Amino acid sequence: MSVTTKATIASFGGKLLKLSHAATSTKCEMNFNLYLPPQASSQKVPVLIYLSGLTCTADNCSEKGFFQHAASKKGIAVLYPDTSPRGLDIQGENDSWDFGTGAGFYVDATNAPYNNGYNMYTYVTEELPKTAFAAFPQLDSSRVSITGHSMGGHGALTLFLRNPGKYKSVSAFAPISNPINCPWGQKAFAGYLGDDKAKWAEHDATELVKKWKGPLDVLIDVGTGDNFYKQGQLLPENLEKAAKESGVEGVTVRYQPDYDHSYFTMATFSDDHVEHAAKYLFA
Amino acid sequence: MSVTTKATIASFGGKLLKLSHAATSTKCEMNFNLYLPPQASSQKVPVLIYLSGLTCTADNCSEKGFFQHAASKKGIAVLYPDTSPRGLDIQGENDSWDFGTGAGFYVDATNAPYNNGYNMYTYVTEELPKTAFAAFPQLDSSRVSITGHSMGGHGALTLFLRNPGKYKSVSAFAPISNPINCPWGQKAFAGYLGDDKAKWAEHDATELVKKWKGPLDVLIDVGTGDNFYKQGQLLPENLEKAAKESGVEGVTVRYQPDYDHSYFTMATFSDDHVEHAAKYLFA
Repeated sequence: MSVTTKATIASFGGKLLKLSHAATSTKCEMNFNLYLPPQASSQKVPVLIYLSGLTCTADNCSEKGFFQHAASKKGIAVLYPDTSPRGLDIQGENDSWDFGTGAGFYVDATNAPYNNGYNMYTYVTEELPKTAFAAFPQLDSSRVSITGHSMGGHGALTLFLRNPGKYKSVSAFAPISNPINCPWGQKAFAGYLGDDKAKWAEHDATELVKKWKGPLDVLIDVGTGDNFYKQGQLLPENLEKAAKESGVEGVTVRYQPDYDHSYFTMATFSDDHVEHAAKYLFA
Repeated sequence: MSVTTKATIASFGGKLLKLSHAATSTKCEMNFNLYLPPQASSQKVPVLIYLSGLTCTADNCSEKGFFQHAASKKGIAVLYPDTSPRGLDIQGENDSWDFGTGAGFYVDATNAPYNNGYNMYTYVTEELPKTAFAAFPQLDSSRVSITGHSMGGHGALTLFLRNPGKYKSVSAFAPISNPINCPWGQKAFAGYLGDDKAKWAEHDATELVKKWKGPLDVLIDVGTGDNFYKQGQLLPENLEKAAKESGVEGVTVRYQPDYDHSYFTMATFSDDHVEHAAKYLFA
């Protein structure tokens, strides 16, 4: 459970910590970043988990997403996990940019050989928070929200929908909203979960929202200039439709004119997503 | 004078344009970025020139500096030049990270072989603005401010001090404030300007401030955790001392506890620097 501090960087009045720890669930040393806002030096602060997209590490959004800007004002810590195990030397894990290394898809693999370490679901929902809460007592484990981008938007939505009550709120940028019906998701789920489509549905936000009971308040931003949106990798309309047809209210997709799939989009709207989380973390 | 648009990226309600043009002064195709705030679609907007540091291109600060955040609110365009000519194939230009490519130091070289294209002073003060104003009539050529980081902080200070009235305001992050007395500056000036120390002094902010007449209002942020500051590459104290001894008021150096030389520092304080420029651009 011990955490190694690799860098401490002053940012927006707080500290961005670059950390690592030996993870059991993913069977390797895992890097992660933690932003501690200035308020964390004198009080407990809630936590916003940000899940990254394909090919990213914990660093990309820490540098380009500007979540620290609003998190600093609100007094929210931001936890940035990595996107997959690293260096397991599983055959084929480095062959594609959208599968294997950098592309763990926030599931626990059941299919060999990926079931030997590709357990990003357990890692993000259990091991990493437990590790972070133990190492940083200023984090309030009872107040955690989740957000993410693209593959990480899929992660945020599905982790939230699978675990009612675990997270205070959820939002997403350009999420893969219906992975069982898009090429990225189909490739990943086939590789990690095998052929059993019932297992796939357990990690599909559009399928999960159909079973949601009670109120929901999901903020989603998708750029209309996002090539992956245009290519049908994201399918936020399917999520909206499924929610509507199931009588689940509160799935808000904002289609942002011209915005693309990049961190420029996140930088533009991260204040809104931190605000959305703050509404519930400080309720 | 024609400008090629390589990318148009939505950012903070405006557009970040990745551009290039065939530059005469630097004898090569030069990339630059221009952020047009939302206000530029309906009115003339003033311009803040941001000069980058060693090894950087126009992209680094566009992605990580967070200037668009405040520029969007204030209605200020941000012009990001590159840091040197590219691809001139001058012998030795790619041998060091702190000289030659990516390290033009905002001077016009007089020393061979660099006098054949390393004219970043003329490029930034004349050719690039002229090109940008011709291509983008929504830019107000009568309202221009300047800022920069490290080598670009040196550039901002010296271009401002050498050209009274040309820029409405100046600010800098971790500027090389007394290049004639630090290793980076000595190497660059020897290479670009030769042995004549009188020429060096013409591009040294600490020397130039001694001759300044009238009021001055320079905002400078330097992190106390900045390794290059600790190593004596920046020497902001020399600038402060020279200003004070010359009776020049208004050189404000804020020593920011723990902040380093990275873009995390700029992201944290860029709002302040845009605000500083806005005070004069909208005076």
